[in-house]
Amino acid sequence: MIPNRHRYAARLNAFKVKGGSVAEMIAAVGRVGGLGAADLNYPDHLADHDTTTLSRLLADQGLILNGLAMRYYTEAGFRLGAFTHPDPAVRRAAIDLTKRGIDACAAMGGSQMTLWMGQDGFDYSFQADYARMWDDTIAAMAEVADHNRAIDIAVEYKPNEPRAHALMPDMATTLLALAEVARPNTGVTLDFAHMLYAGEMPAKAAMLAGRQSRILGLHLNDGYGKRDDGLMAGSVHPVQTVELLVAMQRLGYGGVIYFDTFPDLSGLDPVDEARANIRLTDRLLDVARGLADDPVLAAAQSRQDAAAATVRVMAALYGA
Amino acid sequence: MIPNRHRYAARLNAFKVKGGSVAEMIAAVGRVGGLGAADLNYPDHLADHDTTTLSRLLADQGLILNGLAMRYYTEAGFRLGAFTHPDPAVRRAAIDLTKRGIDACAAMGGSQMTLWMGQDGFDYSFQADYARMWDDTIAAMAEVADHNRAIDIAVEYKPNEPRAHALMPDMATTLLALAEVARPNTGVTLDFAHMLYAGEMPAKAAMLAGRQSRILGLHLNDGYGKRDDGLMAGSVHPVQTVELLVAMQRLGYGGVIYFDTFPDLSGLDPVDEARANIRLTDRLLDVARGLADDPVLAAAQSRQDAAAATVRVMAALYGA
Amino acid sequence: MIPNRHRYAARLNAFKVKGGSVAEMIAAVGRVGGLGAADLNYPDHLADHDTTTLSRLLADQGLILNGLAMRYYTEAGFRLGAFTHPDPAVRRAAIDLTKRGIDACAAMGGSQMTLWMGQDGFDYSFQADYARMWDDTIAAMAEVADHNRAIDIAVEYKPNEPRAHALMPDMATTLLALAEVARPNTGVTLDFAHMLYAGEMPAKAAMLAGRQSRILGLHLNDGYGKRDDGLMAGSVHPVQTVELLVAMQRLGYGGVIYFDTFPDLSGLDPVDEARANIRLTDRLLDVARGLADDPVLAAAQSRQDAAAATVRVMAALYGA
Amino acid sequence: MIPNRHRYAARLNAFKVKGGSVAEMIAAVGRVGGLGAADLNYPDHLADHDTTTLSRLLADQGLILNGLAMRYYTEAGFRLGAFTHPDPAVRRAAIDLTKRGIDACAAMGGSQMTLWMGQDGFDYSFQADYARMWDDTIAAMAEVADHNRAIDIAVEYKPNEPRAHALMPDMATTLLALAEVARPNTGVTLDFAHMLYAGEMPAKAAMLAGRQSRILGLHLNDGYGKRDDGLMAGSVHPVQTVELLVAMQRLGYGGVIYFDTFPDLSGLDPVDEARANIRLTDRLLDVARGLADDPVLAAAQSRQDAAAATVRVMAALYGA
Repeated sequence: MIPNRHRYAARLNAFKVKGGSVAEMIAAVGRVGGLGAADLNYPDHLADHDTTTLSRLLADQGLILNGLAMRYYTEAGFRLGAFTHPDPAVRRAAIDLTKRGIDACAAMGGSQMTLWMGQDGFDYSFQADYARMWDDTIAAMAEVADHNRAIDIAVEYKPNEPRAHALMPDMATTLLALAEVARPNTGVTLDFAHMLYAGEMPAKAAMLAGRQSRILGLHLNDGYGKRDDGLMAGSVHPVQTVELLVAMQRLGYGGVIYFDTFPDLSGLDPVDEARANIRLTDRLLDVARGLADDPVLAAAQSRQDAAAATVRVMAALYGA
Repeated sequence: MIPNRHRYAARLNAFKVKGGSVAEMIAAVGRVGGLGAADLNYPDHLADHDTTTLSRLLADQGLILNGLAMRYYTEAGFRLGAFTHPDPAVRRAAIDLTKRGIDACAAMGGSQMTLWMGQDGFDYSFQADYARMWDDTIAAMAEVADHNRAIDIAVEYKPNEPRAHALMPDMATTLLALAEVARPNTGVTLDFAHMLYAGEMPAKAAMLAGRQSRILGLHLNDGYGKRDDGLMAGSVHPVQTVELLVAMQRLGYGGVIYFDTFPDLSGLDPVDEARANIRLTDRLLDVARGLADDPVLAAAQSRQDAAAATVRVMAALYGA
Repeated sequence: MIPNRHRYAARLNAFKVKGGSVAEMIAAVGRVGGLGAADLNYPDHLADHDTTTLSRLLADQGLILNGLAMRYYTEAGFRLGAFTHPDPAVRRAAIDLTKRGIDACAAMGGSQMTLWMGQDGFDYSFQADYARMWDDTIAAMAEVADHNRAIDIAVEYKPNEPRAHALMPDMATTLLALAEVARPNTGVTLDFAHMLYAGEMPAKAAMLAGRQSRILGLHLNDGYGKRDDGLMAGSVHPVQTVELLVAMQRLGYGGVIYFDTFPDLSGLDPVDEARANIRLTDRLLDVARGLADDPVLAAAQSRQDAAAATVRVMAALYGA
Repeated sequence: MIPNRHRYAARLNAFKVKGGSVAEMIAAVGRVGGLGAADLNYPDHLADHDTTTLSRLLADQGLILNGLAMRYYTEAGFRLGAFTHPDPAVRRAAIDLTKRGIDACAAMGGSQMTLWMGQDGFDYSFQADYARMWDDTIAAMAEVADHNRAIDIAVEYKPNEPRAHALMPDMATTLLALAEVARPNTGVTLDFAHMLYAGEMPAKAAMLAGRQSRILGLHLNDGYGKRDDGLMAGSVHPVQTVELLVAMQRLGYGGVIYFDTFPDLSGLDPVDEARANIRLTDRLLDVARGLADDPVLAAAQSRQDAAAATVRVMAALYGA
């Protein structure tokens, strides 16, 4: 059973205003109402405050720390890769930075570090030695997982951007890597828009994750399946969103739902946009709860009868 | 104002069963209940019955003839093109076949011929002389439009398939062509899934069509934006479907809504599937009617406030 | 080292002419000159001739049998799936048909059965029970692999078509499945156009295959990355083709190169088109051989220097 | 006839280094050798130097001014649009800024202003009033074209980014708009990677442009057809690049070839990368010159014989 209520989190940087500090961003998150958790990016969100101060700032807004997320910034030398950087010294710096991030996470009482290895990819045919990159990634992931067995390492895959091709572009590739890493404190974070533009059916990818690894996070958002549009959850693909939420319920996921959206690109006030995300997701979760154990739907699925299944789902979702 | 009720039509070939005749397909359409119109493909659907018989078969099922749709079959020699075939004799045969189709349409009391110029395209760089193909298409369209000024010629564009690239892949290219054709009895037919995989926002494409030409038909269906999946209307993209229906209402479209879907690919009974299309579309039309003159939505749009607009639309559509 | 010369094979059905028999298709393949192997589809290509006759027909044209490839035709009841069909009796029929195909392969002295599980997929959210489909596929693959340990089972993945989503859409998903199947006589067949429209970089996918499983076949062709265009090898993406050929050489692949192209869609004479495939591939293989051990290229790759690598490759490929 | 030698230009911002000035960027462009022209972005590249100084800096490096290109930056208030901004005051500011840019262009002896209206788009269904946006764009383009009839206004279309959908996403839509604008000093700028991810065949789009408007610029680069990858010209799609160059030659284009690439994303030294662009393009232009009047190719095209055409082209391009 899905808990009565998931905690929601929003992307902290969506609340960044010119010259704004992390403290101001956290305060803005608090103003939304309805958000119960936050993720901090490492190292940037921890640059100006110590972990004690940050923990207090979160608590002041009634927010728990969902976890930390690594950022390997171009300006920090990671343009050509973090765990796969061809220069061993830069690669080592990426691993060490990650370990410090894990330490900071533990210091704040967090339980999870999310890795988005966005720089670990390639742009051109013949640019990269794929086998070497794969080996280097597996070894680095094992090393950071071993750094602190009490902290879960969640891989958030994405097809591309900033690199034209990511080494870890989709669910199945990520699961192959995690099988080689073979550490119990590893898993995946699902990002709905990433799944769409990886060409995946989100609920099917969730099935694979639940079967082969652990699902450590869920990012909701939406888009048109070509890039990481960062639109509000349920605004384009409500049906696939509900199907994913049903799958997550069946898999027993009770963690945070994080809205990984880009209100700035659409000129939206981040507080308004976060409230819309909450409102839409509340409703889609309700629909998902109603469908998760529906015998008519289960019967239709058991014979792959898409007409009966679709009518049932659309009746629940939009009253058809 | 949208009429209280559009007539619905379904793809006749979806009702084809092994060895089944056109008469049997029409009877199956009648069994659906709720379908009020039919399109016939020329020449194949007129091969076995004369126009009088066909008109009677339609009337027996309470169906009006929405129009005819040309098919330039590979087996008939049109693999390399119809209006653009490099062999002038084959090109002439395509034009003459179209004229006979227009005559048959008129004989049945129809008012519209739909052209899907699926063979008029190219597969390889350097295969085709694009300028020659363009000229040949414009000239052929003008000629068939002039053949009978009382019959409207509707172009149904599609990005590709069977050719890797169609000469007429999207709305704007079609409108450029129609501007050159410059005949009042021409226009476009909108196909939702084609629009999606042409990368279009359907309601925006409808705006362009309404501004530059005439909208002569509307095909509803759905898909994942990569190919012509032929799924049930509203099953994947209900939000964009409603937006298109609002745009059609504002443009005064009162014509037939044709379900251009492929139940056979999903193993569905065509009668069940057609009933699901009707049920889903009835509901989405209701939502569209409620939104078309909504002042809160209009105010949100006037300032491009996507949070307010989305909350309003999702409240109407799925109760968020 | 790549052998001096791969055997080439062409898609037998590309040589189908109206009313033509399998014997006539094989004779047409022989007329190409330069083709040294053939695949037969089971059951259709074995419907009219016994295996002895077929073996002789191939030998008469100097062709070895590369293997058999299963076809689970819609008309045979497999529209909703073969190994995943919701009806256990139909699923059993698919497995038994595959075993008979394996027997026929063995009877002809072949060593490989290719499985393209094109019907094993889904079209709609909520249509399918993904976990059940996955289990059924793993079990069926294990069963057919065990049927005859001397025959290799090669999975040819494809993102979609005829179903909107395939259960086995890409390399990494296929490798996850094969890891569960855990039979030594299994592996993958790479199809260049499928890889492109799965969003893969072909040489990277080959690396994964070589690392985790066995590469049992290579299909060359080309396209635009959105669907299975079936164009001639090297006609759109010669650079990625060369990169894949270099990867195959490094992996020690010495098997057949099969041209999985659709000359019919482009109105091409299949003999002319097959000769073009051979000519283009001969040249791209030469380029690949020159690059496989190139120290300048290796040095550029070792530092991910795409400018140096690209200049080197384009000098070899097109004289830049 | 193509002139013996196009002038090449490179993206100035590709040469930006931390804290670097426009003067330093221009000096770096000069170091490439082989670049003969430059575009400046307005207003940013003109912020620190007056036009006289900039003209001298260009001349010192042997560079002519190809033109100016407008940038409507988010920070300047244009996040929700420039010519389509819902706030009339912001829209007016965008138009006035453009006029000042045109004045600066004229002051520097330039002849062309490029408009990339990247902010003029939308992200969500129901966010925007498409008809109002269209009207506002047409009116603004007419106004800026009328501001100085001696300066050409070139529209550079792009499917999306930063907005999820651009109002002017592809060639045909741009040509529809330019037909409404109806000013002789307007035209289009072709960008190869934008064309690819708009789903266009570049040479076909060039045909439409040549027929309906004026081609004012050519941006070469490459990518994978899903986003604006910014890769080196000819590195992924050399065949379509050559086909475009042949089309440009036939259309009599003798203007600048601008390399709109992002070496920074691939960790490349911009001087090395620019030299690679020049080297590859020199070669592809040679191939294009050889094919432009080739009678064998023309004969193959006249019968749409893709096998003969492809063999001819690949013999010229890569020696097949």
